[in-house]
Amino acid sequence: MERSNIIWKKPGFLIRRLQQIQVAVFLSECAGIDITPVQWGILTIVAEYPGVGHIEISEELGLDRSNVANVVNRLVSRGMLKQKLSPTDRRKKDIILTKAGQKLIEQVESRALRAQRKILTPLSEEEVDVFVDLLTRLVRENNHLGRATLRLA
Amino acid sequence: MERSNIIWKKPGFLIRRLQQIQVAVFLSECAGIDITPVQWGILTIVAEYPGVGHIEISEELGLDRSNVANVVNRLVSRGMLKQKLSPTDRRKKDIILTKAGQKLIEQVESRALRAQRKILTPLSEEEVDVFVDLLTRLVRENNHLGRATLRLA
Repeated sequence: MERSNIIWKKPGFLIRRLQQIQVAVFLSECAGIDITPVQWGILTIVAEYPGVGHIEISEELGLDRSNVANVVNRLVSRGMLKQKLSPTDRRKKDIILTKAGQKLIEQVESRALRAQRKILTPLSEEEVDVFVDLLTRLVRENNHLGRATLRLA
Repeated sequence: MERSNIIWKKPGFLIRRLQQIQVAVFLSECAGIDITPVQWGILTIVAEYPGVGHIEISEELGLDRSNVANVVNRLVSRGMLKQKLSPTDRRKKDIILTKAGQKLIEQVESRALRAQRKILTPLSEEEVDVFVDLLTRLVRENNHLGRATLRLA
């Protein structure tokens, strides 16, 4: 098959493929560590916003609520996160990192950055800036079209 | 939560989010039609390369072999694709479109394009060209890092 293929030229296909590549690179950089890209996303949110709740995580990462609940439960059962009833809102659970969770983040952080740098290698620094700018605008302006809506402001 | 969030600035996160948005937009444009983005990808490949096999589809779309087999079987059972043993290679099955499959493609095509245009609306025409060029280079140069490798030349 030659590259003149219709689908190959579609941005939609390219985005899907790039997402697939970056998951593969993240997982290969994290070989030997028990972590998935979604777990990683949740850990970094909790690290940045201690006491965050399920709803905020779902909005922030653009994940479905049930998906967040499953992954949070998995991280709680592994001892990486702790949940406690919110003192201000009894229907909400505050999520915080444990020491083990903090350690896991430190372990993964440099590998996640390495994965990202690896993927961006083909572009110059200026091109990376342009790419991130275009991506940011596309995500921000289309944000309301996604399944879970990220809170952006 | 404010947008100054660490994860928000990561290209990795933006790519993941854009992929999620485009799946949502595709599905909403195709409301009432029984089609998924992966089924759509496979149908367009078979339309372009009648007689294509599972391995080529998996390479072309960057999907795992078992994933392709499942979706092809589903499309065969729905009467959209037909498989027959290859006359030249007895281990291979040639996949072709049925009339119903052709009709489904015609139904989805304009909606898929509309979904794509919708997502790219925030960018000018020149910006779309730059974006697609950068995306293409990222995918092409990182292609060997993905799970299934696309044949590009």
